[in-house]
Amino acid sequence: MGYTIDELSVGQSDSFTKTISESDVYLFAGVTGDFNPAHIDEEQAKSSKFQTRIAHGMLSAGFISSVMGMKLPGPGTIYISQTLTFCAPVHIGDTITATVEVLSIDYERNRVFLKTFCRNQDGRIVVTGEAVTSPRNI
Amino acid sequence: MGYTIDELSVGQSDSFTKTISESDVYLFAGVTGDFNPAHIDEEQAKSSKFQTRIAHGMLSAGFISSVMGMKLPGPGTIYISQTLTFCAPVHIGDTITATVEVLSIDYERNRVFLKTFCRNQDGRIVVTGEAVTSPRNI
Amino acid sequence: MGYTIDELSVGQSDSFTKTISESDVYLFAGVTGDFNPAHIDEEQAKSSKFQTRIAHGMLSAGFISSVMGMKLPGPGTIYISQTLTFCAPVHIGDTITATVEVLSIDYERNRVFLKTFCRNQDGRIVVTGEAVTSPRNI
Amino acid sequence: MGYTIDELSVGQSDSFTKTISESDVYLFAGVTGDFNPAHIDEEQAKSSKFQTRIAHGMLSAGFISSVMGMKLPGPGTIYISQTLTFCAPVHIGDTITATVEVLSIDYERNRVFLKTFCRNQDGRIVVTGEAVTSPRNI
Repeated sequence: MGYTIDELSVGQSDSFTKTISESDVYLFAGVTGDFNPAHIDEEQAKSSKFQTRIAHGMLSAGFISSVMGMKLPGPGTIYISQTLTFCAPVHIGDTITATVEVLSIDYERNRVFLKTFCRNQDGRIVVTGEAVTSPRNI
Repeated sequence: MGYTIDELSVGQSDSFTKTISESDVYLFAGVTGDFNPAHIDEEQAKSSKFQTRIAHGMLSAGFISSVMGMKLPGPGTIYISQTLTFCAPVHIGDTITATVEVLSIDYERNRVFLKTFCRNQDGRIVVTGEAVTSPRNI
Repeated sequence: MGYTIDELSVGQSDSFTKTISESDVYLFAGVTGDFNPAHIDEEQAKSSKFQTRIAHGMLSAGFISSVMGMKLPGPGTIYISQTLTFCAPVHIGDTITATVEVLSIDYERNRVFLKTFCRNQDGRIVVTGEAVTSPRNI
Repeated sequence: MGYTIDELSVGQSDSFTKTISESDVYLFAGVTGDFNPAHIDEEQAKSSKFQTRIAHGMLSAGFISSVMGMKLPGPGTIYISQTLTFCAPVHIGDTITATVEVLSIDYERNRVFLKTFCRNQDGRIVVTGEAVTSPRNI
Protein backbone atom coordinates (compact mmCIF):
# COMPACT_ATOMS: atom_id res chain seq x y z
CA MET A 1 0.00 0.00 0.00
CA GLY A 2 1.01 3.63 -0.49
CA TYR A 3 2.14 6.26 1.99
CA THR A 4 -0.20 7.86 4.51
CA ILE A 5 0.08 11.64 4.92
CA ASP A 6 2.24 11.21 8.03
CA GLU A 7 4.79 9.27 6.01
CA LEU A 8 5.21 12.04 3.43
CA SER A 9 7.43 15.12 3.59
CA VAL A 10 7.92 18.24 1.49
CA GLY A 11 10.56 17.70 -1.18
CA GLN A 12 10.00 13.94 -1.38
CA SER A 13 9.90 12.84 -4.99
CA ASP A 14 9.62 9.78 -7.20
CA SER A 15 9.57 9.08 -10.90
CA PHE A 16 8.83 6.63 -13.72
CA THR A 17 10.66 6.37 -17.04
CA LYS A 18 9.58 4.80 -20.30
CA THR A 19 10.78 5.00 -23.87
CA ILE A 20 7.72 5.86 -25.98
CA SER A 21 7.09 3.18 -28.57
CA GLU A 22 4.93 3.46 -31.64
CA SER A 23 2.68 0.83 -30.07
CA ASP A 24 2.20 3.05 -26.99
CA VAL A 25 0.93 5.85 -29.21
CA TYR A 26 -1.25 3.52 -31.25
CA LEU A 27 -2.77 1.77 -28.25
CA PHE A 28 -3.40 5.13 -26.59
CA ALA A 29 -5.17 6.24 -29.78
CA GLY A 30 -7.13 2.99 -29.86
CA VAL A 31 -8.30 3.31 -26.27
CA THR A 32 -9.13 7.04 -26.25
CA GLY A 33 -10.34 7.42 -29.83
CA ASP A 34 -7.87 10.23 -30.44
CA PHE A 35 -6.90 9.46 -34.02
CA ASN A 36 -5.71 12.99 -34.69
CA PRO A 37 -3.46 12.63 -37.77
CA ALA A 38 -0.67 14.28 -35.77
CA HIS A 39 -0.44 10.97 -33.88
CA ILE A 40 -1.18 8.30 -36.48
CA ASP A 41 -0.70 9.70 -40.00
CA GLU A 42 2.99 9.96 -40.81
CA GLU A 43 2.36 11.38 -44.27
CA GLN A 44 0.38 14.33 -42.97
CA ALA A 45 2.65 14.70 -39.92
CA LYS A 46 5.67 15.12 -42.23
CA SER A 47 4.29 18.43 -43.42
CA SER A 48 3.20 19.56 -39.95
CA LYS A 49 5.00 21.89 -37.55
CA PHE A 50 6.60 18.88 -35.81
CA GLN A 51 7.60 17.09 -39.07
CA THR A 52 6.73 13.63 -37.76
CA ARG A 53 4.08 11.94 -35.64
CA ILE A 54 4.00 13.02 -32.00
CA ALA A 55 2.68 11.23 -28.93
CA HIS A 56 -0.54 12.34 -27.23
CA GLY A 57 0.11 14.86 -24.46
CA MET A 58 -2.23 12.84 -22.26
CA LEU A 59 0.05 9.81 -22.63
CA SER A 60 2.80 11.66 -20.78
CA ALA A 61 0.15 12.85 -18.32
CA GLY A 62 -0.66 9.18 -17.79
CA PHE A 63 2.91 8.62 -16.61
CA ILE A 64 2.39 11.31 -13.95
CA SER A 65 -0.76 9.50 -12.86
CA SER A 66 1.28 6.29 -12.82
CA VAL A 67 3.85 7.71 -10.39
CA MET A 68 1.11 8.99 -8.10
CA GLY A 69 -0.86 5.74 -8.15
CA MET A 70 2.10 3.41 -7.89
CA LYS A 71 4.78 5.25 -5.90
CA LEU A 72 4.03 8.66 -4.39
CA PRO A 73 1.73 8.60 -2.52
CA GLY A 74 1.02 5.17 -4.09
CA PRO A 75 -1.85 2.67 -3.82
CA GLY A 76 -4.85 3.87 -1.87
CA THR A 77 -4.42 7.53 -2.77
CA ILE A 78 -7.34 9.37 -4.35
CA TYR A 79 -6.48 11.65 -7.24
CA ILE A 80 -8.28 14.96 -6.82
CA SER A 81 -6.99 17.30 -9.48
CA GLN A 82 -4.24 17.94 -11.97
CA THR A 83 -3.12 20.90 -14.08
CA LEU A 84 -1.16 20.22 -17.25
CA THR A 85 0.77 22.48 -19.60
CA PHE A 86 2.07 20.83 -22.74
CA CYS A 87 5.41 22.55 -23.38
CA ALA A 88 7.13 20.54 -26.08
CA PRO A 89 6.35 17.67 -28.42
CA VAL A 90 7.11 14.05 -27.52
CA HIS A 91 8.25 11.87 -30.39
CA ILE A 92 8.17 8.12 -30.83
CA GLY A 93 11.48 6.89 -29.44
CA ASP A 94 11.79 9.64 -26.82
CA THR A 95 12.46 8.46 -23.28
CA ILE A 96 10.13 10.29 -20.91
CA THR A 97 10.64 10.57 -17.17
CA ALA A 98 7.61 11.63 -15.16
CA THR A 99 8.45 13.07 -11.75
CA VAL A 100 6.23 14.09 -8.87
CA GLU A 101 7.51 16.06 -5.88
CA VAL A 102 5.69 17.00 -2.70
CA LEU A 103 5.19 20.79 -2.56
CA SER A 104 3.07 21.10 0.56
CA ILE A 105 0.88 19.05 2.88
CA ASP A 106 -2.49 19.90 4.42
CA TYR A 107 -2.75 17.48 7.33
CA GLU A 108 -6.21 18.62 8.41
CA ARG A 109 -7.86 17.92 5.11
CA ASN A 110 -5.53 15.02 4.20
CA ARG A 111 -4.37 16.71 1.02
CA VAL A 112 -0.96 16.62 -0.62
CA PHE A 113 0.06 19.18 -3.25
CA LEU A 114 2.63 18.02 -5.77
CA LYS A 115 4.70 19.52 -8.52
CA THR A 116 4.46 17.22 -11.54
CA PHE A 117 6.47 17.26 -14.73
CA CYS A 118 7.81 15.12 -17.55
CA ARG A 119 11.22 15.53 -19.15
CA ASN A 120 12.59 13.90 -22.26
CA GLN A 121 16.03 12.26 -22.63
CA ASP A 122 17.63 15.66 -23.21
CA GLY A 123 16.27 17.02 -19.95
CA ARG A 124 13.73 19.20 -21.70
CA ILE A 125 10.41 19.67 -19.89
CA VAL A 126 7.58 18.39 -22.10
CA VAL A 127 4.68 18.54 -19.63
CA THR A 128 4.41 20.45 -16.38
CA GLY A 129 1.72 21.10 -13.80
CA GLU A 130 0.54 20.52 -10.28
CA ALA A 131 -1.55 17.83 -8.65
CA VAL A 132 -3.66 17.44 -5.53
CA THR A 133 -4.19 14.00 -4.05
CA SER A 134 -5.59 12.54 -0.86
CA PRO A 135 -3.34 9.76 0.45
CA ARG A 136 -4.86 6.63 1.94
CA ASN A 137 -5.83 7.12 5.57
CA ILE A 138 -6.35 3.54 6.62
CA MET B 1 -8.65 19.26 -41.01
CA GLY B 2 -9.95 21.06 -37.93
CA TYR B 3 -11.47 24.50 -37.53
CA THR B 4 -9.44 27.71 -37.73
CA ILE B 5 -10.16 30.31 -35.07
CA ASP B 6 -12.45 32.24 -37.43
CA GLU B 7 -14.66 29.20 -37.82
CA LEU B 8 -15.24 28.84 -34.07
CA SER B 9 -17.79 30.61 -31.88
CA VAL B 10 -18.49 30.84 -28.16
CA GLY B 11 -20.91 28.14 -27.02
CA GLN B 12 -19.98 25.74 -29.81
CA SER B 13 -19.53 22.25 -28.42
CA ASP B 14 -18.83 18.70 -29.40
CA SER B 15 -18.46 15.37 -27.65
CA PHE B 16 -17.29 11.76 -27.77
CA THR B 17 -18.89 8.81 -26.00
CA LYS B 18 -17.47 5.39 -25.16
CA THR B 19 -18.47 2.58 -22.85
CA ILE B 20 -15.42 1.78 -20.74
CA SER B 21 -14.36 -1.83 -21.21
CA GLU B 22 -12.12 -3.85 -18.96
CA SER B 23 -9.66 -3.99 -21.86
CA ASP B 24 -9.61 -0.17 -22.02
CA VAL B 25 -8.57 -0.04 -18.38
CA TYR B 26 -6.04 -2.85 -18.80
CA LEU B 27 -4.47 -1.40 -21.93
CA PHE B 28 -4.29 2.01 -20.28
CA ALA B 29 -2.50 0.38 -17.34
CA GLY B 30 -0.25 -1.48 -19.73
CA VAL B 31 0.73 1.64 -21.65
CA THR B 32 1.18 4.01 -18.71
CA GLY B 33 2.53 1.53 -16.16
CA ASP B 34 -0.21 2.47 -13.71
CA PHE B 35 -0.95 -0.92 -12.13
CA ASN B 36 -2.45 0.64 -9.01
CA PRO B 37 -4.54 -2.19 -7.49
CA ALA B 38 -7.56 0.11 -7.64
CA HIS B 39 -7.53 -0.50 -11.39
CA ILE B 40 -6.43 -4.10 -11.80
CA ASP B 41 -6.97 -6.04 -8.54
CA GLU B 42 -10.65 -6.83 -8.05
CA GLU B 43 -10.07 -8.59 -4.73
CA GLN B 44 -8.43 -5.58 -3.14
CA ALA B 45 -10.78 -3.17 -4.87
CA LYS B 46 -13.76 -4.97 -3.29
CA SER B 47 -12.69 -3.73 0.11
CA SER B 48 -11.84 -0.22 -1.13
CA LYS B 49 -13.96 2.91 -0.91
CA PHE B 50 -15.32 2.25 -4.42
CA GLN B 51 -15.99 -1.49 -3.85
CA THR B 52 -14.81 -2.54 -7.29
CA ARG B 53 -12.09 -1.68 -9.79
CA ILE B 54 -12.25 1.85 -11.21
CA ALA B 55 -10.87 3.29 -14.44
CA HIS B 56 -7.88 5.61 -14.44
CA GLY B 57 -8.96 9.26 -14.24
CA MET B 58 -6.54 10.03 -17.06
CA LEU B 59 -8.45 7.64 -19.32
CA SER B 60 -11.48 9.94 -19.17
CA ALA B 61 -9.11 12.88 -19.63
CA GLY B 62 -7.93 11.12 -22.78
CA PHE B 63 -11.48 11.32 -24.11
CA ILE B 64 -11.40 15.12 -23.68
CA SER B 65 -8.15 15.21 -25.59
CA SER B 66 -9.82 13.05 -28.20
CA VAL B 67 -12.66 15.54 -28.76
CA MET B 68 -10.21 18.41 -29.05
CA GLY B 69 -7.90 16.58 -31.42
CA MET B 70 -10.61 15.04 -33.55
CA LYS B 71 -13.55 17.46 -33.52
CA LEU B 72 -13.27 20.81 -31.76
CA PRO B 73 -11.08 22.49 -32.89
CA GLY B 74 -9.93 19.22 -34.53
CA PRO B 75 -6.82 18.20 -36.46
CA GLY B 76 -4.08 20.78 -36.61
CA THR B 77 -4.85 22.30 -33.23
CA ILE B 78 -2.06 22.50 -30.65
CA TYR B 79 -3.03 21.53 -27.11
CA ILE B 80 -1.61 24.11 -24.73
CA SER B 81 -3.01 23.30 -21.30
CA GLN B 82 -5.68 21.44 -19.39
CA THR B 83 -6.99 21.48 -15.84
CA LEU B 84 -8.70 18.37 -14.49
CA THR B 85 -10.74 17.72 -11.37
CA PHE B 86 -11.67 14.09 -10.78
CA CYS B 87 -15.15 14.29 -9.20
CA ALA B 88 -16.49 10.76 -9.19
CA PRO B 89 -15.26 7.24 -9.93
CA VAL B 90 -15.66 5.65 -13.37
CA HIS B 91 -16.39 1.93 -13.34
CA ILE B 92 -15.85 -0.71 -15.99
CA GLY B 93 -19.10 -0.73 -18.00
CA ASP B 94 -19.84 2.97 -17.48
CA THR B 95 -20.56 4.97 -20.61
CA ILE B 96 -18.59 8.19 -20.54
CA THR B 97 -19.33 11.24 -22.65
CA ALA B 98 -16.56 13.80 -22.92
CA THR B 99 -17.74 17.26 -23.96
CA VAL B 100 -15.80 20.40 -24.83
CA GLU B 101 -17.45 23.79 -25.24
CA VAL B 102 -15.92 27.06 -26.40
CA LEU B 103 -15.84 29.55 -23.51
CA SER B 104 -13.93 32.39 -25.10
CA ILE B 105 -11.68 33.18 -28.02
CA ASP B 106 -8.50 35.28 -28.15
CA TYR B 107 -8.15 36.09 -31.84
CA GLU B 108 -4.91 38.02 -31.43
CA ARG B 109 -3.01 35.20 -29.84
CA ASN B 110 -4.95 32.45 -31.68
CA ARG B 111 -6.12 30.89 -28.44
CA VAL B 112 -9.41 29.16 -27.64
CA PHE B 113 -10.55 28.57 -24.07
CA LEU B 114 -12.84 25.59 -23.54
CA LYS B 115 -14.91 24.14 -20.76
CA THR B 116 -14.25 20.40 -20.67
CA PHE B 117 -16.08 17.71 -18.74
CA CYS B 118 -17.01 14.04 -18.75
CA ARG B 119 -20.35 12.66 -17.61
CA ASN B 120 -21.36 9.06 -17.00
CA GLN B 121 -24.55 7.40 -18.25
CA ASP B 122 -26.50 8.85 -15.31
CA GLY B 123 -25.47 12.40 -16.22
CA ARG B 124 -23.10 12.63 -13.27
CA ILE B 125 -19.98 14.71 -13.87
CA VAL B 126 -16.91 12.50 -13.35
CA VAL B 127 -14.16 14.84 -14.62
CA THR B 128 -14.29 18.58 -15.15
CA GLY B 129 -11.83 21.32 -16.09
CA GLU B 130 -10.78 23.83 -18.68
CA ALA B 131 -8.50 23.68 -21.68
CA VAL B 132 -6.54 26.11 -23.81
CA THR B 133 -5.74 25.23 -27.38
CA SER B 134 -4.34 26.96 -30.44
CA PRO B 135 -6.35 26.05 -33.57
CA ARG B 136 -4.56 25.45 -36.85
CA ASN B 137 -3.86 28.67 -38.73
CA ILE B 138 -2.90 27.28 -42.09
CA MET C 1 17.26 0.41 -8.86
CA GLY C 2 16.84 -3.00 -7.25
CA TYR C 3 18.51 -4.53 -4.23
CA THR C 4 22.14 -5.63 -4.23
CA ILE C 5 22.90 -9.00 -2.65
CA ASP C 6 23.95 -7.34 0.61
CA GLU C 7 20.55 -5.73 0.94
CA LEU C 8 18.69 -9.06 0.70
CA SER C 9 17.96 -11.54 3.46
CA VAL C 10 16.51 -15.04 3.66
CA GLY C 11 12.76 -14.95 4.11
CA GLN C 12 12.34 -11.57 2.44
CA SER C 13 9.41 -11.63 0.06
CA ASP C 14 7.35 -9.47 -2.24
CA SER C 15 4.37 -9.95 -4.52
CA PHE C 16 2.23 -8.62 -7.36
CA THR C 17 -1.51 -9.09 -7.80
CA LYS C 18 -3.68 -8.79 -10.88
CA THR C 19 -7.16 -9.86 -11.81
CA ILE C 20 -6.86 -11.77 -15.09
CA SER C 21 -8.92 -10.13 -17.80
CA GLU C 22 -10.01 -11.65 -21.07
CA SER C 23 -7.82 -9.05 -22.77
CA ASP C 24 -4.78 -10.28 -20.81
CA VAL C 25 -5.33 -13.78 -22.16
CA TYR C 26 -5.98 -12.54 -25.69
CA LEU C 27 -2.98 -10.22 -25.79
CA PHE C 28 -0.80 -12.98 -24.37
CA ALA C 29 -2.05 -15.25 -27.15
CA GLY C 30 -1.44 -12.54 -29.72
CA VAL C 31 2.12 -11.92 -28.59
CA THR C 32 3.21 -15.54 -28.11
CA GLY C 33 1.19 -17.17 -30.89
CA ASP C 34 -0.34 -19.63 -28.42
CA PHE C 35 -3.85 -19.83 -29.84
CA ASN C 36 -4.55 -23.16 -28.21
CA PRO C 37 -8.37 -23.41 -28.21
CA ALA C 38 -8.21 -23.94 -24.44
CA HIS C 39 -7.40 -20.23 -24.22
CA ILE C 40 -9.39 -18.59 -27.01
CA ASP C 41 -12.22 -20.93 -28.13
CA GLU C 42 -15.03 -20.83 -25.58
CA GLU C 43 -17.17 -23.32 -27.51
CA GLN C 44 -14.49 -25.99 -27.49
CA ALA C 45 -13.41 -25.07 -23.96
CA LYS C 46 -16.96 -25.69 -22.71
CA SER C 47 -16.56 -29.38 -23.43
CA SER C 48 -12.98 -29.57 -22.06
CA LYS C 49 -11.83 -30.75 -18.66
CA PHE C 50 -11.89 -27.17 -17.35
CA GLN C 51 -15.31 -26.31 -18.88
CA THR C 52 -14.32 -22.80 -19.89
CA ARG C 53 -11.32 -20.97 -21.34
CA ILE C 54 -8.26 -20.88 -19.11
CA ALA C 55 -5.32 -18.48 -19.01
CA HIS C 56 -1.90 -19.52 -20.29
CA GLY C 57 0.29 -20.94 -17.53
CA MET C 58 3.11 -18.73 -18.78
CA LEU C 59 0.98 -15.65 -18.11
CA SER C 60 1.08 -16.42 -14.40
CA ALA C 61 4.78 -17.19 -14.78
CA GLY C 62 5.12 -13.71 -16.25
CA PHE C 63 3.81 -12.27 -12.98
CA ILE C 64 6.63 -14.06 -11.14
CA SER C 65 9.09 -12.52 -13.56
CA SER C 66 7.41 -9.18 -12.91
CA VAL C 67 7.99 -9.38 -9.14
CA MET C 68 11.62 -10.31 -9.66
CA GLY C 69 12.25 -7.59 -12.23
CA MET C 70 10.34 -4.86 -10.46
CA LYS C 71 10.58 -5.56 -6.76
CA LEU C 72 12.74 -8.43 -5.49
CA PRO C 73 15.59 -8.15 -6.29
CA GLY C 74 14.23 -5.51 -8.73
CA PRO C 75 15.79 -3.53 -11.59
CA GLY C 76 19.32 -4.52 -12.54
CA THR C 77 18.91 -8.18 -11.59
CA ILE C 78 19.71 -10.84 -14.17
CA TYR C 79 17.26 -13.72 -14.37
CA ILE C 80 19.21 -16.99 -14.55
CA SER C 81 16.69 -19.79 -14.26
CA GLN C 82 13.17 -20.72 -13.25
CA THR C 83 11.31 -23.97 -12.63
CA LEU C 84 7.54 -24.00 -13.00
CA THR C 85 4.90 -26.53 -12.08
CA PHE C 86 1.39 -25.72 -13.25
CA CYS C 87 -0.86 -27.03 -10.45
CA ALA C 88 -4.31 -25.69 -11.16
CA PRO C 89 -6.13 -23.82 -13.92
CA VAL C 90 -6.43 -20.03 -13.92
CA HIS C 91 -9.71 -18.68 -15.24
CA ILE C 92 -10.58 -15.30 -16.67
CA GLY C 93 -11.67 -13.21 -13.69
CA ASP C 94 -9.37 -14.95 -11.21
CA THR C 95 -7.19 -12.68 -9.12
CA ILE C 96 -3.64 -14.03 -9.13
CA THR C 97 -0.97 -13.09 -6.61
CA ALA C 98 2.61 -13.94 -7.58
CA THR C 99 5.00 -14.13 -4.64
CA VAL C 100 8.75 -14.57 -4.51
CA GLU C 101 10.62 -15.30 -1.31
CA VAL C 102 14.37 -15.50 -0.74
CA LEU C 103 15.37 -19.09 0.10
CA SER C 104 19.14 -18.76 0.21
CA ILE C 105 21.95 -16.48 -0.86
CA ASP C 106 25.33 -17.33 -2.43
CA TYR C 107 27.39 -14.20 -1.77
CA GLU C 108 30.49 -15.49 -3.56
CA ARG C 109 28.77 -16.07 -6.86
CA ASN C 110 26.21 -13.25 -6.40
CA ARG C 111 23.29 -15.65 -6.70
CA VAL C 112 19.93 -15.55 -4.94
CA PHE C 113 17.64 -18.58 -4.78
CA LEU C 114 13.96 -17.86 -4.49
CA LYS C 115 10.77 -19.77 -3.89
CA THR C 116 8.19 -18.58 -6.40
CA PHE C 117 4.48 -19.27 -6.53
CA CYS C 118 1.14 -17.91 -7.67
CA ARG C 119 -2.09 -18.25 -5.74
CA ASN C 120 -5.63 -17.46 -6.84
CA GLN C 121 -8.20 -15.49 -4.83
CA ASP C 122 -9.12 -18.62 -2.85
CA GLY C 123 -5.51 -19.12 -1.75
CA ARG C 124 -5.03 -22.10 -4.03
CA ILE C 125 -1.56 -22.51 -5.51
CA VAL C 126 -1.79 -22.41 -9.31
CA VAL C 127 1.91 -22.24 -10.20
CA THR C 128 4.92 -23.07 -8.08
CA GLY C 129 8.66 -23.35 -8.60
CA GLU C 130 12.04 -21.91 -7.81
CA ALA C 131 14.17 -19.20 -9.38
CA VAL C 132 17.81 -18.21 -9.47
CA THR C 133 18.77 -14.62 -10.12
CA SER C 134 21.89 -12.48 -9.94
CA PRO C 135 21.13 -9.12 -8.31
CA ARG C 136 22.73 -5.95 -9.66
CA ASN C 137 26.22 -5.45 -8.31
CA ILE C 138 26.80 -1.84 -9.22
CA MET D 1 -6.77 -31.45 -32.04
CA GLY D 2 -3.31 -32.38 -30.84
CA TYR D 3 -1.53 -35.73 -30.78
CA THR D 4 -2.40 -38.50 -28.33
CA ILE D 5 0.51 -40.26 -26.67
CA ASP D 6 0.32 -43.11 -29.17
CA GLU D 7 0.87 -40.72 -32.02
CA LEU D 8 4.13 -39.35 -30.56
CA SER D 9 7.64 -40.72 -30.84
CA VAL D 10 11.02 -39.93 -29.32
CA GLY D 11 12.94 -37.41 -31.41
CA GLN D 12 9.83 -35.85 -32.90
CA SER D 13 10.11 -32.09 -32.86
CA ASP D 14 8.37 -28.93 -33.92
CA SER D 15 9.01 -25.24 -33.69
CA PHE D 16 7.66 -21.69 -33.91
CA THR D 17 9.56 -18.64 -35.11
CA LYS D 18 8.83 -14.97 -34.57
CA THR D 19 10.81 -11.77 -34.96
CA ILE D 20 10.51 -9.90 -31.67
CA SER D 21 8.95 -6.50 -32.17
CA GLU D 22 9.05 -3.56 -29.82
CA SER D 23 5.28 -3.93 -29.49
CA ASP D 24 5.72 -7.58 -28.39
CA VAL D 25 7.96 -6.42 -25.55
CA TYR D 26 5.70 -3.51 -24.65
CA LEU D 27 2.51 -5.59 -24.66
CA PHE D 28 4.24 -8.27 -22.60
CA ALA D 29 5.21 -5.57 -20.10
CA GLY D 30 1.69 -4.20 -20.18
CA VAL D 31 0.08 -7.57 -19.51
CA THR D 32 2.48 -8.84 -16.85
CA GLY D 33 3.30 -5.53 -15.16
CA ASP D 34 7.01 -6.09 -15.72
CA PHE D 35 8.18 -2.54 -16.46
CA ASN D 36 11.76 -3.29 -15.49
CA PRO D 37 13.77 -0.47 -17.15
CA ALA D 38 15.82 -3.16 -18.91
CA HIS D 39 12.76 -3.73 -21.08
CA ILE D 40 11.23 -0.28 -21.53
CA ASP D 41 13.81 2.43 -20.80
CA GLU D 42 16.29 2.76 -23.65
CA GLU D 43 18.28 5.52 -21.94
CA GLN D 44 18.98 3.42 -18.87
CA ALA D 45 19.42 0.27 -20.94
CA LYS D 46 22.17 1.99 -22.97
CA SER D 47 24.40 2.02 -19.92
CA SER D 48 23.46 -1.53 -18.85
CA LYS D 49 25.38 -4.74 -19.46
CA PHE D 50 23.34 -5.39 -22.61
CA GLN D 51 23.61 -1.80 -23.97
CA THR D 52 20.03 -1.68 -25.23
CA ARG D 53 16.56 -2.83 -24.17
CA ILE D 54 16.09 -6.60 -24.00
CA ALA D 55 12.96 -8.73 -24.24
CA HIS D 56 11.52 -10.44 -21.17
CA GLY D 57 12.89 -13.98 -20.81
CA MET D 58 9.34 -15.18 -20.22
CA LEU D 59 8.35 -13.91 -23.64
CA SER D 60 10.64 -16.48 -25.24
CA ALA D 61 9.31 -19.02 -22.77
CA GLY D 62 5.86 -18.15 -24.06
CA PHE D 63 6.96 -19.28 -27.51
CA ILE D 64 7.86 -22.70 -26.06
CA SER D 65 4.42 -22.88 -24.51
CA SER D 66 3.04 -21.88 -27.89
CA VAL D 67 4.68 -24.83 -29.68
CA MET D 68 3.44 -27.24 -27.04
CA GLY D 69 -0.10 -25.88 -27.06
CA MET D 70 -0.39 -25.49 -30.81
CA LYS D 71 1.78 -28.21 -32.36
CA LEU D 72 3.50 -30.78 -30.19
CA PRO D 73 1.59 -32.36 -28.59
CA GLY D 74 -0.92 -29.60 -29.54
CA PRO D 75 -4.46 -28.76 -28.45
CA GLY D 76 -5.83 -30.83 -25.61
CA THR D 77 -2.47 -31.32 -23.91
CA ILE D 78 -2.09 -30.32 -20.28
CA TYR D 79 1.10 -28.48 -19.40
CA ILE D 80 2.55 -29.95 -16.22
CA SER D 81 5.95 -28.39 -15.72
CA GLN D 82 8.77 -26.50 -17.35
CA THR D 83 12.34 -25.64 -16.45
CA LEU D 84 13.95 -22.59 -18.00
CA THR D 85 17.52 -21.33 -18.11
CA PHE D 86 18.00 -17.90 -19.62
CA CYS D 87 21.34 -18.13 -21.45
CA ALA D 88 21.61 -15.01 -23.55
CA PRO D 89 19.74 -11.74 -24.05
CA VAL D 90 17.04 -11.34 -26.68
CA HIS D 91 16.92 -7.94 -28.37
CA ILE D 92 14.12 -6.20 -30.19
CA GLY D 93 14.48 -7.28 -33.82
CA ASP D 94 15.89 -10.71 -33.01
CA THR D 95 14.18 -13.65 -34.67
CA ILE D 96 13.54 -16.35 -32.10
CA THR D 97 12.82 -19.97 -32.92
CA ALA D 98 11.34 -22.03 -30.10
CA THR D 99 11.76 -25.77 -30.55
CA VAL D 100 10.40 -28.69 -28.57
CA GLU D 101 11.60 -32.26 -29.06
CA VAL D 102 10.28 -35.44 -27.49
CA LEU D 103 12.89 -36.87 -25.09
CA SER D 104 10.91 -39.77 -23.61
CA ILE D 105 7.40 -41.05 -23.19
CA ASP D 106 5.71 -42.57 -20.13
CA TYR D 107 2.73 -44.40 -21.60
CA GLU D 108 1.41 -45.60 -18.26
CA ARG D 109 1.08 -42.16 -16.77
CA ASN D 110 0.38 -40.42 -20.11
CA ARG D 111 3.38 -38.16 -19.73
CA VAL D 112 5.72 -36.83 -22.42
CA PHE D 113 9.12 -35.33 -21.57
CA LEU D 114 10.46 -32.73 -23.96
CA LYS D 115 13.64 -30.85 -24.52
CA THR D 116 12.75 -27.21 -25.10
CA PHE D 117 14.93 -24.38 -26.29
CA CYS D 118 14.93 -21.07 -28.14
CA ARG D 119 17.61 -19.93 -30.56
CA ASN D 120 18.12 -16.52 -32.11
CA GLN D 121 18.81 -15.82 -35.81
CA ASP D 122 22.51 -16.60 -35.30
CA GLY D 123 21.75 -20.05 -33.90
CA ARG D 124 22.66 -19.03 -30.39
CA ILE D 125 20.64 -20.67 -27.62
CA VAL D 126 18.86 -17.97 -25.60
CA VAL D 127 16.58 -20.15 -23.43
CA THR D 128 16.83 -23.84 -22.68
CA GLY D 129 15.04 -26.31 -20.44
CA GLU D 130 12.75 -29.30 -20.25
CA ALA D 131 9.01 -29.73 -20.14
CA VAL D 132 6.52 -32.34 -19.02
CA THR D 133 3.11 -32.47 -20.56
CA SER D 134 0.12 -34.82 -20.62
CA PRO D 135 -1.25 -35.20 -24.15
CA ARG D 136 -4.99 -35.35 -24.71
CA ASN D 137 -6.39 -38.82 -24.20
CA ILE D 138 -9.81 -38.41 -25.71
